[in-house]
Amino acid sequence: MTMIDNTLSAIDADSGPALDRLFAFLRIPSISASPAHFADCERAADWLVAELGAIGFEAAKHATDGRPMVVGRLTAARRDCPHVLFYGHYDVQPADPLDLWRSPPFEPKLESGPRGERIVARGASDDKGQLMTFLEACRGFQKFGGPPCAITVLFEGEEETGSPSLGAFLAHNAKMLRADVVLVCDTAMWNATTPAITAALRGIVADEVILTGANRDLHSGLYGGAAVNPIHALAGILGGLHDADGAVALPGFYDDVEEPPEEIKEQWAALDFDPAAFLGEVGLNTPAGERGRTPLEQLWSRPTCEVNGISGGYAGDGIKTVLPAKASAKVSFRLVGKQNPDNIVQSFRAFVASRLPPDVKAEFIGHAGSPAIALPIKNEALRRARRALEAEWGTPAALIGSGGSIPIVGAFKRELNMDSLLIGFALEDDAIHSPNEKYERTAFHKGARSWARVLAALAA
Amino acid sequence: MTMIDNTLSAIDADSGPALDRLFAFLRIPSISASPAHFADCERAADWLVAELGAIGFEAAKHATDGRPMVVGRLTAARRDCPHVLFYGHYDVQPADPLDLWRSPPFEPKLESGPRGERIVARGASDDKGQLMTFLEACRGFQKFGGPPCAITVLFEGEEETGSPSLGAFLAHNAKMLRADVVLVCDTAMWNATTPAITAALRGIVADEVILTGANRDLHSGLYGGAAVNPIHALAGILGGLHDADGAVALPGFYDDVEEPPEEIKEQWAALDFDPAAFLGEVGLNTPAGERGRTPLEQLWSRPTCEVNGISGGYAGDGIKTVLPAKASAKVSFRLVGKQNPDNIVQSFRAFVASRLPPDVKAEFIGHAGSPAIALPIKNEALRRARRALEAEWGTPAALIGSGGSIPIVGAFKRELNMDSLLIGFALEDDAIHSPNEKYERTAFHKGARSWARVLAALAA
Repeated sequence: MTMIDNTLSAIDADSGPALDRLFAFLRIPSISASPAHFADCERAADWLVAELGAIGFEAAKHATDGRPMVVGRLTAARRDCPHVLFYGHYDVQPADPLDLWRSPPFEPKLESGPRGERIVARGASDDKGQLMTFLEACRGFQKFGGPPCAITVLFEGEEETGSPSLGAFLAHNAKMLRADVVLVCDTAMWNATTPAITAALRGIVADEVILTGANRDLHSGLYGGAAVNPIHALAGILGGLHDADGAVALPGFYDDVEEPPEEIKEQWAALDFDPAAFLGEVGLNTPAGERGRTPLEQLWSRPTCEVNGISGGYAGDGIKTVLPAKASAKVSFRLVGKQNPDNIVQSFRAFVASRLPPDVKAEFIGHAGSPAIALPIKNEALRRARRALEAEWGTPAALIGSGGSIPIVGAFKRELNMDSLLIGFALEDDAIHSPNEKYERTAFHKGARSWARVLAALAA
Repeated sequence: MTMIDNTLSAIDADSGPALDRLFAFLRIPSISASPAHFADCERAADWLVAELGAIGFEAAKHATDGRPMVVGRLTAARRDCPHVLFYGHYDVQPADPLDLWRSPPFEPKLESGPRGERIVARGASDDKGQLMTFLEACRGFQKFGGPPCAITVLFEGEEETGSPSLGAFLAHNAKMLRADVVLVCDTAMWNATTPAITAALRGIVADEVILTGANRDLHSGLYGGAAVNPIHALAGILGGLHDADGAVALPGFYDDVEEPPEEIKEQWAALDFDPAAFLGEVGLNTPAGERGRTPLEQLWSRPTCEVNGISGGYAGDGIKTVLPAKASAKVSFRLVGKQNPDNIVQSFRAFVASRLPPDVKAEFIGHAGSPAIALPIKNEALRRARRALEAEWGTPAALIGSGGSIPIVGAFKRELNMDSLLIGFALEDDAIHSPNEKYERTAFHKGARSWARVLAALAA
């Protein structure tokens, strides 16, 4: 038997104890949003340090301004083997509303579900179960000379609260964390039988605009018809942000947009994505947005401009005949290709300024943005990981995009200039962030086997 | 001396005691918005009943679901003389913020101001001082056979809380209250030396529109570009409510709009109205609204459509990348001429419905409206009252409009089919509803003399 066959057999043989270990981890209510659980976050970090030690890592807890980071390092037997940085997070979402759980969220249990056994607990999928797939893979190699790659693991305890300490930690520990590629296990499969690598993430930038007319709210009877109404101005401007074909009307908006490679587009077209079901689930029938684009293209490869909030004047019950002094909106842009967040915001602001009626002033509140991220399709690590996943699941891994940004991936790129390979075994129906969160036992087991294959493939 | 000369002399001779009476009335903190002051409202009503009794009225307090009405009746000596209904209100606005008053709001005092002595107290102008001008006029006639008209007075105690009991009270007491004309003393002079009759009031109708897209708020990363955004739809619709010339774009909106008579337009043009000062006071420079109309026309004779409030999506601090399920707006229309409130709302709703993108549903919440009110310029009572005011002030009374509606005037028209003659002696700078409310002593004195002349003129 080859090393990988031995390792996979070891993972299979150890699946009972692996489940016990995950259950022990899940019992720690490491809710990063709640000061009452900060001590539990420390416990979860300590548990990981011990766990890493048991499989040969040199591991330690590192203090931050928030919850601690756990870093573990494992030197490879061969000096020329690749070096990977694996990222996961040990913190979990709050569990409320508690009364909607079928069993207590921090008392993990096995339930039977339509696809076999499932592990039910807060964090079962996001991200403790996913994180442990990687550690179980590392453990599988232990009796056979250890993993074929040099491995650094980084476990964060603030992912669910926006990773406030991550950027600085990466910057200050760049040397310790540098590797050839980042492996991230915090995403989903395409479906229960098709593994996926998330290879394109849209960027994002947001801006707030506040329009001011008169120096105070006016009575619409005494001033209406003579005084300017900033809500009208705002509606006119926002109403002009999209053209009749659903495209964003800002000058130059599409200048740095790139079409995905044909290979990717063909692959997306071949995915069994059902737009009607996707929209139907949220009560919609008709794809909005740019004409002539499939919904997957709209979501994964096309930029957007969305008004996320608007307010002005009276918002209580009934009617108040105020002619308001102010109206404001929050606008965000999903970015693709080489679109530059700062340029997009400047274009938006110029658009607003050019459409202001007399007597209306605009102020803006900017927010830091991040550009889109795409793993080049010719990337060697991507190619090898894809083959490894296909070997495990018996079906080609989908190369998918994500309409949302994943801030940690931007941080790895920005702070360490490292690409991330996003491979996860969660499923759409895992109910992450919701009551009765679950992780398929198959996902947990085959996830570990998948990582063993990916590490072997990267080292081959 | 004629009766009117005698009466005016009596008013002049009685001005000290008249001030004492007003002060006594002002000392009662009859704040209708505050349950703590409901007993004071009763006291104010009782005080008025006694006061009316002292000048020959048959008067009584009438219970309502809220604060009581006071009705007083005085039969005229001659049977063929006209019958007037005088309206005023004894309730006042709350006095806070108390620390901005130079003296306690319910301890009236005389201050000297740029135009002579002024009476400072909550209610000095709105409406106790104005109400008392009429009673002092009635008192002036007392020694000379009584007023030359049959008089019914109606004093309300809920004007500052929206007159919730007035409509039903008028309807149930139509016979008791019927008269030839309503006299209302709750408006202002054109300026400190020019009396005014408010002869045109815009009507109003309001509607709320709620647009719904998806069945829940969506993540703008996961759905943005494929799912419809109801804020965009709402902005597009509201942004189309006005054309490039500032006119309202609803089909048929101007069908029932009438131009004011040339005589009125000429008179408005001759008023010393300074649009720059009017707008400058609230920080604006440029008349908005319909092109080719003067600001006074815009305010008094042209209808409007104003969005009074808009909301949708995230309104807290910072950015939340939500793609909201709902967006809503509150819209009101100021009406003129024969514009029908129901037709205007139907036109608005049809406009919205015709511009809804697929998957966006509209709901509406209607509110009762009222049409515009205009006293015909050929009205005999108006003509006589105008002459009487000119005799008192030495300058022609301005026939002015009001951009706002005065609900009580609508109620008199609707419930009793009676026209109202709005004559008041307040000034723009009286600070009604604000700290240090004042009424010019001259306004109080010449107001009483004015009413004496108006009653004499109506009876002539």
